[in-house]
Amino acid sequence: MTPARIGAALLLAAAALPAAAQPQVAGQLKAQQVCAVCHGPQGVSSAPDAPNLAGQPAMYLISQLRHYRSGERRHEVMNVIAKTLSDQDIEAVAAWYAAFRIEAVAPR
Amino acid sequence: MTPARIGAALLLAAAALPAAAQPQVAGQLKAQQVCAVCHGPQGVSSAPDAPNLAGQPAMYLISQLRHYRSGERRHEVMNVIAKTLSDQDIEAVAAWYAAFRIEAVAPR
Repeated sequence: MTPARIGAALLLAAAALPAAAQPQVAGQLKAQQVCAVCHGPQGVSSAPDAPNLAGQPAMYLISQLRHYRSGERRHEVMNVIAKTLSDQDIEAVAAWYAAFRIEAVAPR
Repeated sequence: MTPARIGAALLLAAAALPAAAQPQVAGQLKAQQVCAVCHGPQGVSSAPDAPNLAGQPAMYLISQLRHYRSGERRHEVMNVIAKTLSDQDIEAVAAWYAAFRIEAVAPR
């Protein structure tokens, strides 16, 4: 499937969902469009200077995206990207990444 | 075991390790002393405003700890904590958390 078709399928799926689940689905779509290039398709980054987002607390993600948008937290790329996000986008993306379950295995 | 005894045991274990593994063990000790209260004993935070550190890329952790130490990135607690860390501490803590293997399970 092309990205556009995946997007359309997600929007159709979102329309069939109860209201509570919709921000998360909208967040998945936005995350694929905006975040995945650097932070990985599953929120696990392969770039050495980009953090993993999967499983991060929503409150943390929301505050950091707002700080990037306002310029309080500085990063060349993130300051530009965050300016394209509405409050609703930020909450949706945060809901999506926070909903991942992560398991951490300590090094031996 | 008390925290002091765990610390002593880790230092003894570190002395017996090859040089390449030592920053990671020093990082584990420092992480337990300094980071675990907010970021969790395994680097998976239970605090809603503190990010998970387990499995984050070392380069990212190093740059953020340096930014907290210099004040470029602002956070009431982290600015104070990072000032107590040497360059060596920062590299060791980053090596420890980066060595975790993480698995992210997407929400259904």
